[in-house]
Amino acid sequence: MRQRRRKSACPVHFALEVFGDPWTLLIIRDLMFKGRTRYTDFLRAEEAIATNVLADRLARLEEDGIIAQAAGASRGARGPYRLTAKGIELLPIMLEIIGWSATHDPKTAADREFVRRFRTQPAAFTAEIRSQLLADHSPSGPIHDPA
Amino acid sequence: MRQRRRKSACPVHFALEVFGDPWTLLIIRDLMFKGRTRYTDFLRAEEAIATNVLADRLARLEEDGIIAQAAGASRGARGPYRLTAKGIELLPIMLEIIGWSATHDPKTAADREFVRRFRTQPAAFTAEIRSQLLADHSPSGPIHDPA
Repeated sequence: MRQRRRKSACPVHFALEVFGDPWTLLIIRDLMFKGRTRYTDFLRAEEAIATNVLADRLARLEEDGIIAQAAGASRGARGPYRLTAKGIELLPIMLEIIGWSATHDPKTAADREFVRRFRTQPAAFTAEIRSQLLADHSPSGPIHDPA
Repeated sequence: MRQRRRKSACPVHFALEVFGDPWTLLIIRDLMFKGRTRYTDFLRAEEAIATNVLADRLARLEEDGIIAQAAGASRGARGPYRLTAKGIELLPIMLEIIGWSATHDPKTAADREFVRRFRTQPAAFTAEIRSQLLADHSPSGPIHDPA
């Protein structure tokens, strides 16, 4: 088990210890919005994560209770990853990040309709994605894609 | 000028290129909530940032238009740092991070009243902090402190 010496009990610091790594947040993005749930899916993301980094970050996310891996079809096999309830609760942070980038990145790939719905009906839009994530333990594809 | 090759136009990736570094977000926290505005103030934060890391992150934040440094009292002197309008717009992200940590960190130092106000009146609370940040170019101390 990874031992981390916390430098402070500050809530910002706590969150950064869990997901304050760029690759970690991209994996959460893939699970949350892109329908990517398997090791090979994450490798295919356009930011081109390295295999050793991916394995390390998946292990940390599992240890921190943000993601879980389902049992596979056969004994010993492992199924797709999914966000836990704790992981799904990162949704409002991710939506605020997407909204900020959509405003400040002139080259943003942020989907206009996605951003419009988040801005005009934030509570309803967040609840809609959340309920889909809670229901959808093995998504076959992205339902809401911000980009 | 730093040249960054963007790996994708994804809005999550864009944001991570700007503030996806733990130290960067702690500096933003200090400016936003702690009334820390000078180099020596940031060094005093309990996470104990190293001087070279601090200098690097301040330069990046300035380059990315998140912070600006006021002119000092005398010629050549430099004044306190402050968040720009673009930096202040990171407030909703920071508040969601604080809310998430307050829920999931059993040892959280998150201030109860701060979290309660964010949860019960998110729009009003966010607007209140935002207007103070916009008005307050040289804060003498923290006004809202989440921890």
